[in-house]
Amino acid sequence: MFAEAGVPAAVVLPRSTADVVAVMQTASRHGVPVVPRGGGSGLVGAANAVDGVITLVTTRMDAVLEVSATDRLAVVQPGVVTRALRDAVAGLGLYYPPDPASYDWCTLGGNLAMDSGGLCCVKYGVTSDHVLGLEVVLADGRVLRTGRRTVKGVAGYDLTRLFVGSEGTLGVITEATLSLRPAPATPVTLVASFASTAQTGRVVQRVVTEGLVPSMLEVMDRTCIRAVDDLMRSGLDRDAHALLMAQSDAGGEAAVAEIAALTRICTDEGADLVHSTDDAGEADLLLAARRMAWPALQRLGSGLLLDDVAVPRGRIADFMDGCQQVAVRAGLVVAVVGHAGDGNMHPTVVFDQTDADQRTRAHEAFDAILALGLELGGTITGEHGVGRIKTEWLERELGPVSMSVHRAIKDALDPQGLLNPGTMFRRAAVGDLPAVASAQA
Amino acid sequence: MFAEAGVPAAVVLPRSTADVVAVMQTASRHGVPVVPRGGGSGLVGAANAVDGVITLVTTRMDAVLEVSATDRLAVVQPGVVTRALRDAVAGLGLYYPPDPASYDWCTLGGNLAMDSGGLCCVKYGVTSDHVLGLEVVLADGRVLRTGRRTVKGVAGYDLTRLFVGSEGTLGVITEATLSLRPAPATPVTLVASFASTAQTGRVVQRVVTEGLVPSMLEVMDRTCIRAVDDLMRSGLDRDAHALLMAQSDAGGEAAVAEIAALTRICTDEGADLVHSTDDAGEADLLLAARRMAWPALQRLGSGLLLDDVAVPRGRIADFMDGCQQVAVRAGLVVAVVGHAGDGNMHPTVVFDQTDADQRTRAHEAFDAILALGLELGGTITGEHGVGRIKTEWLERELGPVSMSVHRAIKDALDPQGLLNPGTMFRRAAVGDLPAVASAQA
Ligand SMILES: Cc1cc2nc3c(=O)[nH]c(=O)nc-3n(C[C@H](O)[C@H](O)[C@H](O)COP(=O)(O)OP(=O)(O)OC[C@H]3O[C@@H](n4cnc5c(N)ncnc54)[C@H](O)[C@@H]3O)c2cc1C
Ligand SMILES: Cc1cc2nc3c(=O)[nH]c(=O)nc-3n(C[C@H](O)[C@H](O)[C@H](O)COP(=O)(O)OP(=O)(O)OC[C@H]3O[C@@H](n4cnc5c(N)ncnc54)[C@H](O)[C@@H]3O)c2cc1C
Repeated sequence: MFAEAGVPAAVVLPRSTADVVAVMQTASRHGVPVVPRGGGSGLVGAANAVDGVITLVTTRMDAVLEVSATDRLAVVQPGVVTRALRDAVAGLGLYYPPDPASYDWCTLGGNLAMDSGGLCCVKYGVTSDHVLGLEVVLADGRVLRTGRRTVKGVAGYDLTRLFVGSEGTLGVITEATLSLRPAPATPVTLVASFASTAQTGRVVQRVVTEGLVPSMLEVMDRTCIRAVDDLMRSGLDRDAHALLMAQSDAGGEAAVAEIAALTRICTDEGADLVHSTDDAGEADLLLAARRMAWPALQRLGSGLLLDDVAVPRGRIADFMDGCQQVAVRAGLVVAVVGHAGDGNMHPTVVFDQTDADQRTRAHEAFDAILALGLELGGTITGEHGVGRIKTEWLERELGPVSMSVHRAIKDALDPQGLLNPGTMFRRAAVGDLPAVASAQA
Repeated sequence: MFAEAGVPAAVVLPRSTADVVAVMQTASRHGVPVVPRGGGSGLVGAANAVDGVITLVTTRMDAVLEVSATDRLAVVQPGVVTRALRDAVAGLGLYYPPDPASYDWCTLGGNLAMDSGGLCCVKYGVTSDHVLGLEVVLADGRVLRTGRRTVKGVAGYDLTRLFVGSEGTLGVITEATLSLRPAPATPVTLVASFASTAQTGRVVQRVVTEGLVPSMLEVMDRTCIRAVDDLMRSGLDRDAHALLMAQSDAGGEAAVAEIAALTRICTDEGADLVHSTDDAGEADLLLAARRMAWPALQRLGSGLLLDDVAVPRGRIADFMDGCQQVAVRAGLVVAVVGHAGDGNMHPTVVFDQTDADQRTRAHEAFDAILALGLELGGTITGEHGVGRIKTEWLERELGPVSMSVHRAIKDALDPQGLLNPGTMFRRAAVGDLPAVASAQA
């Protein structure tokens, strides 16, 4: 779970697809590996350089090329910051849902390459649910167009979704056609505090079985609450053991009914406090608290290992209980924050980097949480990706047949193995990796 | 646009994944091609036999293996009829949205292989939007599992969506984990009649730009209206030139507001008649009329060529106008029916099969409609697929780079070219195809 960072031979900042083509042609002619990179906010080391590679940074390809209200879509370059697209379409009454907590600085290219999620994915889906088509520069410099501008279309294989989530290992995304939605109603927001994280797990389960579709359903445990409150002085309930934050953007009476149903469920499950508001300012403050959870946790320990497990929604309570057992066994704090509504949890192991024993126990705890996730029918990565830190876990989750199919596809599209070596697939020889290693969750 | 049908060497009806493995092992050992087949309702000849193949029919693998309300998912075998899954989950307050008009007899395996759409896709998306994971038997008999049971997950490439829509050319789907939704509210239904199809195109465009999200938005032109009325005596307005059918399942006041907004738009655009109802019986009758459009059209002419073009929603009116120009030029009737809300139209060329001249003109008209679709930024297939009848059009839409990527993936997964030869990819030699040819749209 460490992502090594090497020294690239060159860093290029292309301004156009033609520039990217030139880079890939040169790279393939000379057999030089290329690591694509967006905002560098990724959490699995997938955009880290490896010694001697070309790092291809897309941040200068940052134009929103088109926003069409008639077709409800946008055409963008990969370096556009996620938040910038949201803002660009808001004036037209349109909405681009995927909202990783890092949306102020991550790029759409990175979101596409990782198939990123975010807070509102529980209702609207992740990045791949909003992509109509791509322009991709292949390893050999050829330009591939996938998908279309239409809502529906089944002409050929779904290459769009093959490239989405491929973590820069199959091609460089140089343009994307993204679908937009009508802007939802201003949300009604609910916060509920509980004496245990397990209670919030039960609430989520009931939300699912009772057929509610909130537009956000997030959880933070006491460690996170306090860390965020220390960072932001946001007046969170520091005594709560778990905080659930939910929103309904169903509008009008439907939103009121949805929040009322949520309130009833929280109360049933023994919430200490339930508060709801349709005040936008108060809601923004609560959301900011959630978005800052990770930066806040970073101030807690010199070492943090951020996990990213998704479990079936029926198993959330079991998973949360299990994480606390892992914490007890390891004798460390495991802070829990996550997109509870879709079962995608980020238990984070907090430890003292300078203490060798704690380091070992932290890594054991990190692994134990991944194993727990798989045991509960979950996945080792809900949204952050595999990158360089989970290649072995990927093999464990997928098994040999799937890995060989992955390998066959990789070889078919990138026979020289130029694109993002060491990401998604284990590198052949361990000695290949550079010695300079920076601990990173 | 003709799908040849050959004589298979054998027809097998497996009952289990193990049976399918045995078939694929035998087939690959002896180099015998295999054509997977579900309900046989496909419209592009993709499940037609080729001389000497093994036809693998999945209809006996028809068990719904699991329905989980806690995880909001179902696990099914491929031979389950689409309607049967809907019915199986309805009792739990759950809903499987994809509803091809053929859902009384097509199978989920066929829906997955074609990434089928249907009436409610305008709001809920197509088959691929409801698949969490698959079990697939590969060409060499290995069993691959893709995806997961969780809502989110990004472990590895999105193989699930690579197999969905691959038309049986990459593997045999033997099991699927499908996501379910809470059952929506009973819909409110609206019907509006117009003096021209172009008016309905404008209505659809305004629905998009004004941010409405109806759960159904279908169109039928006069030829269809009359054909359906002849078949079903459903009391449709036989004098209308176009009928628009819409539903809102938003529930309560939201549905009422949505239907009111739709009514206003229809009236603005000059509807002759607008009628809405929350009576379930009346709504079922209207929907049945839409579902029977294709069988009804089949009674019209000895020859029918059913097109399946999707255009960006901003171009629907242009497309409908264009189809009428094609009809005039060809001197034939082009009946228009389609999923207007997502721009997926099925203009159908009606002709006399026994008249050589009409046959030629019909094929020219069919091609002209595909060309028009591409010209308007659309696709040659919105939901029916490529099959054996549109391989050349696929090349035209995708171009050489994409076709070579398709070919590379096909070769990586099915190096012997055993799975469904002639579908998606043109067969090398024309002489390969059997002489027995049955005209089929
Ligand atoms: C505080 C914080 C909160 C976060 N919250 C979330 C969250 O809620 N949900 C979530 O899913 N993630 C979250 N992340 C993770 C991260 O922000 C996402 O993975 C994001 O999509 C990465 O975008 P980026 O532009 O920073 O990409 P980078 O980190 O630069 O790169 C990520 C990957 O994308 C590839 N890549 C980048 N651009 C391209 C391109 N044009 N073509 C091909 N490959 C490319 C890289 O090679 C690499 O594999 C969070 C991270 C932080 C630090
Ligand atoms: C009246 C009518 C209305 C229709 N309406 C619609 C509509 O609204 N929307 C729409 O999208 N389509 C529609 N269709 C087309 C058709 O019903 C769909 O394509 C349907 O999904 C086909 O399912 P099937 O089981 O009949 O498959 P088949 O026709 O038997 O096969 C279709 C394809 O799937 C492959 N296949 C089947 N099972 C498997 C498997 N287990 N593994 C791998 N490959 C497999 C076959 O090889 C073939 O390529 C309609 C057809 C008719 C006749």
